Amino acid sequence: MLKPLGDRLVIELVKQEEKTASGIVLPDSAQEKPQEGKVIAVGTGRITESGDKVAPQVKEDDKILFSKYSGTEVKYEGRDLLILRESDVLAVIE
Amino acid sequence: MLKPLGDRLVIELVKQEEKTASGIVLPDSAQEKPQEGKVIAVGTGRITESGDKVAPQVKEDDKILFSKYSGTEVKYEGRDLLILRESDVLAVIE
Amino acid sequence: MLKPLGDRLVIELVKQEEKTASGIVLPDSAQEKPQEGKVIAVGTGRITESGDKVAPQVKEDDKILFSKYSGTEVKYEGRDLLILRESDVLAVIE
Amino acid sequence: MLKPLGDRLVIELVKQEEKTASGIVLPDSAQEKPQEGKVIAVGTGRITESGDKVAPQVKEDDKILFSKYSGTEVKYEGRDLLILRESDVLAVIE
Amino acid sequence: MLKPLGDRLVIELVKQEEKTASGIVLPDSAQEKPQEGKVIAVGTGRITESGDKVAPQVKEDDKILFSKYSGTEVKYEGRDLLILRESDVLAVIE
Amino acid sequence: MLKPLGDRLVIELVKQEEKTASGIVLPDSAQEKPQEGKVIAVGTGRITESGDKVAPQVKEDDKILFSKYSGTEVKYEGRDLLILRESDVLAVIE
Amino acid sequence: MLKPLGDRLVIELVKQEEKTASGIVLPDSAQEKPQEGKVIAVGTGRITESGDKVAPQVKEDDKILFSKYSGTEVKYEGRDLLILRESDVLAVIE
Repeated sequence: MLKPLGDRLVIELVKQEEKTASGIVLPDSAQEKPQEGKVIAVGTGRITESGDKVAPQVKEDDKILFSKYSGTEVKYEGRDLLILRESDVLAVIE
Repeated sequence: MLKPLGDRLVIELVKQEEKTASGIVLPDSAQEKPQEGKVIAVGTGRITESGDKVAPQVKEDDKILFSKYSGTEVKYEGRDLLILRESDVLAVIE
Repeated sequence: MLKPLGDRLVIELVKQEEKTASGIVLPDSAQEKPQEGKVIAVGTGRITESGDKVAPQVKEDDKILFSKYSGTEVKYEGRDLLILRESDVLAVIE
Repeated sequence: MLKPLGDRLVIELVKQEEKTASGIVLPDSAQEKPQEGKVIAVGTGRITESGDKVAPQVKEDDKILFSKYSGTEVKYEGRDLLILRESDVLAVIE
Repeated sequence: MLKPLGDRLVIELVKQEEKTASGIVLPDSAQEKPQEGKVIAVGTGRITESGDKVAPQVKEDDKILFSKYSGTEVKYEGRDLLILRESDVLAVIE
Repeated sequence: MLKPLGDRLVIELVKQEEKTASGIVLPDSAQEKPQEGKVIAVGTGRITESGDKVAPQVKEDDKILFSKYSGTEVKYEGRDLLILRESDVLAVIE
Repeated sequence: MLKPLGDRLVIELVKQEEKTASGIVLPDSAQEKPQEGKVIAVGTGRITESGDKVAPQVKEDDKILFSKYSGTEVKYEGRDLLILRESDVLAVIE
């Protein structure tokens, strides 16, 4: 199992189709495009400069939108995973 | 539903016309131009380095002006949405 | 009405003449030139990293000098307005 | 009257001669050269990230040395003035 | 023995094979690839700007994933070691 | 007299010889070389973001080593002076 | 004697050989290589933005590894010394 550190998350990638399962269609533009993923594991949260721990806002199994090109890809037990910081998460899809 | 994280907002874009409904005419200059939107969803607010949460100043249904080219475009359930940070909001239109 | 967020102000531009009404003559040099404006609306103030709110120093109807090329232009109800941060205000003209 | 904001000062420029009145001769080198000025007006001081106000160290009528090319030039009521931040002041000449 | 300072760790490198012992296959892409290592020694933790010490999250013998190209290589007593900051650790492999 | 502000010092330059009076020989390398000076005047100290004043560590008449190319040169009453920040001081020579 | 300021250290360089006395062999790669030194003098420690002093972790006579190209070289009383910040120290060799 991968246990992410601090404000990091492990995400399973949701393959991009023209229209995703949750109904999101990614526009065909020059702007930065978000990508969809499912949260597999959550770190314990970031530590601020005052020494306080900030609890993560996302939890396991959350479906999220995140900025493409953020995070680090890794294949683990046959799954395409991505380790990214919670600050790269744009929104939770409910 | 998209639930934005931290100090992020989900905005529905208001299409730019030469003169918008609220009476704003965008000048024809080289400077950065603002864009109009309606707030669809609001995050829980940013966490400062002292660990304090800053409550968002905008709320759902607010009409806002924001810096063009800020945020991330996404199509969701047929609507043109934008996820941006509250710090990219210039003003609320009342 | 435009209600600026945080440490932002809405300013009405004062057209540059060779000698402005308040007696300021802008020098003909390569340095950054200030511009004159009147404050139309004031945000609630910036939030520091300790979570404290800093009250704005300028108020409505103040005449101010600000750094040229700062802020974002917008036309609203026929007026040339500019939304800028209080930190871009150089001085109040009294 | 110009009332500078925050940690800004209004300075009246002292014209550079080969040897200034106070005995400072500016060296003829490639390094950044300081410039002499008289303080005309002082802001209320900068606000730190903890929300504390830092009282200005210079006062009206102080003669100061400051880094050339810092600040913003303005002509006001026939005088060559400069608006700069206190952090650009190198030393007070006593 | 090497005793790392602050938020640094000493890591023994795990040689990259096409499929590593723990089942991680590194994808063949243009993105930044993580690397696997075993923690040999842990510093006492970073000091925040508030003067608080943040206890390290990893411990000796932990298997970790870290960003390739982070840290400083050193050979010590015949072993390939790497000294890196805990913030470069992506996840602990459990 | 020059009274430096905040964390600044006024330094009198010690001319570089091949071997200086205090026995320091500057190596002939591509690295940044330090320079020797005598402290003439000391500011009241820097103010941290928490609003605390940090007392200067050097005092008048201290001989110091500082990074070459730091600070601002000024000639004052016939002396070659330099105004620099205490953070540019490498060491006191005792 | 050289007395370093704040979080600085004075280090005596240990000449690089193919295999150093402590058994460290520096790898022949494109990555940044560490260098070995002995601590000669230690500053009183850095001051955080909260005004707290952080005690140094290294002490006199410690053998350390530090990032090559960090710090400032100086020859003093016939010895090759280096003044560097404690944050450039990678590890203490015990």
